[in-house]
Amino acid sequence: MRISELGEFGLITLIHSNITKSENSKLTPWKEVVAGIGDDAAAWQFNDHLQLATTDTLVQDIHFDLDVINWEELGWKALAVNLSDIAAMGGIPKYALLALALPGELEVENIFKFTDGMLHLAKKLRVAIVGGNIAAAPNVVITVTIIGCSEGESILKRSTASPGDRIAVTGYLGLSAAALEMFKAKTISDLKLHNVLRQAHFKPMPKVKEGRLLVKQGVKTAIDISDGLIADLDHICESSRVNAKININQVPIHPVVTENFPNYRELALSGGEDYELLFTADEATINRVKQTLDCTVTVIGDIIKEQSPTRVAVVDSTGNVIHYKKGGWEHFKHGVREVKFA
Amino acid sequence: MRISELGEFGLITLIHSNITKSENSKLTPWKEVVAGIGDDAAAWQFNDHLQLATTDTLVQDIHFDLDVINWEELGWKALAVNLSDIAAMGGIPKYALLALALPGELEVENIFKFTDGMLHLAKKLRVAIVGGNIAAAPNVVITVTIIGCSEGESILKRSTASPGDRIAVTGYLGLSAAALEMFKAKTISDLKLHNVLRQAHFKPMPKVKEGRLLVKQGVKTAIDISDGLIADLDHICESSRVNAKININQVPIHPVVTENFPNYRELALSGGEDYELLFTADEATINRVKQTLDCTVTVIGDIIKEQSPTRVAVVDSTGNVIHYKKGGWEHFKHGVREVKFA
Repeated sequence: MRISELGEFGLITLIHSNITKSENSKLTPWKEVVAGIGDDAAAWQFNDHLQLATTDTLVQDIHFDLDVINWEELGWKALAVNLSDIAAMGGIPKYALLALALPGELEVENIFKFTDGMLHLAKKLRVAIVGGNIAAAPNVVITVTIIGCSEGESILKRSTASPGDRIAVTGYLGLSAAALEMFKAKTISDLKLHNVLRQAHFKPMPKVKEGRLLVKQGVKTAIDISDGLIADLDHICESSRVNAKININQVPIHPVVTENFPNYRELALSGGEDYELLFTADEATINRVKQTLDCTVTVIGDIIKEQSPTRVAVVDSTGNVIHYKKGGWEHFKHGVREVKFA
Repeated sequence: MRISELGEFGLITLIHSNITKSENSKLTPWKEVVAGIGDDAAAWQFNDHLQLATTDTLVQDIHFDLDVINWEELGWKALAVNLSDIAAMGGIPKYALLALALPGELEVENIFKFTDGMLHLAKKLRVAIVGGNIAAAPNVVITVTIIGCSEGESILKRSTASPGDRIAVTGYLGLSAAALEMFKAKTISDLKLHNVLRQAHFKPMPKVKEGRLLVKQGVKTAIDISDGLIADLDHICESSRVNAKININQVPIHPVVTENFPNYRELALSGGEDYELLFTADEATINRVKQTLDCTVTVIGDIIKEQSPTRVAVVDSTGNVIHYKKGGWEHFKHGVREVKFA
């Protein structure tokens, strides 16, 4: 069977099971592991803290198009997508490693711009770029690894949602997917709109501060929205062995998206790359979170008992189920090309 | 200017200087850093230990040829080259992250074999594979990150060699480069020879145990031989601001190489990918090391004061200088394609 037939999610499951059934899972370092394959980052106990590590790759012409993104944006984004995984664990990012595979014919100037973009975000989130590796390659492949730690002894995980939890999301969704629509259309009617979408897609701000505040307020369960709201909520449901029900009318779609894109619901529910935090907790905890976070926090639904193979049900305000799988979210698949397994 | 004109070493220096001159180098996490860009792994203080992290990428058709290497060997090697960097720091590897970029048309079976190879070595060296990432790509790109720690408070670095130190190397050199010669020739005259070379090139055993023992015996300076003996000794000299003089007749060349390859000296001095440890220390320390290590330890020369732009002088037993740069090591450049900057 080919990888394309199995799909990336299937491949992750296979690799995970290959590791679990091997003697690797009996090795001493595993005793300290509290989150491994299947979460946003790996986490293990080290003295009084938890340590966190995550890695993510961006591949030319799969994740980015050098005709559209500029090198400064690429540097920012390569770091941002990784920092977002640490944010999703409620951790503090500290050190970054950069592995660059590059064609020799690239201009050196581009790499200057790339590191400038990376350093710009690294400075904002206080991450030290301490090493890496450079290799020749036919196309650009960027792999960033972040190592961080927990603030106290708690982190956010995907596997801790319980029936009765409410589901909430930070910020507004859909801008990043709308940007892709705009790039595909290859027309820019409104420069201001272009800049807003471009910023959201290429220079997302990872919600590191927000993730840490979630932990402080007692939230246990979170994920960052990279694959798309429904896909990422599905990841939580799978890990926690629960189902979820969300109200499509409560999903906080960015007004720029609702105003300019007729398919705004698809973009917000399935588009991905928003890098907002999706989390679950009891009502009282979410109310505390709302008072603590600077950004908007919106309750969009509830965690319920595991009862259906369709883990995430989408309903409207009158309770009617919206059959999104048949309804057309499927075509927008860029987020599915890349799948985290830690 | 193009990257191919600047060269990878030049690019590393540029990235390093871009980071150093930026405000990134003033950030809090940097205060804990004891080894950064320019060593085999990054190292920083975390509670009573030093933590270590390194990342390395293997690119299809640059670092490996799928017509020659099998997937089990590829899994082993992708982990081994990274573990060797931790060995060069005298550290204990603990956790591995695997970022795989893969074409969809690959057979899933290959990935099984790949993880089997990786798990085989991981078990031997007690490394837990705790996470990673999978992405689609036109060609195979494998990036492994290892996170480890020091045993006590000391590690091995490139920057601590002093005039008066003797230079020593573990094991025997040249097998891995000889394997490449054999693959290029595309003829196998001797199956036993083929197996020995193939094993050395595709399934090197990182000298993790040896690196830890070097630290215990008081050695401060080491590097693993990945780019080649002269190139890696040059890295030590550059970092430590010293020169080195080695006796070509003392270099421990593997007998299989001397017996079968007329250019055995080139292969041993410039071939690279031996993954032995090259280290410097005073005579008494090296004598203790010789008594402690299971493998052969050979003294090959001396660290001297910085006095020449040609940092590594090669002499014969009568003291005649061998002008290797003009003499022909240059053509064998596969090791130069990839350059560590931490």
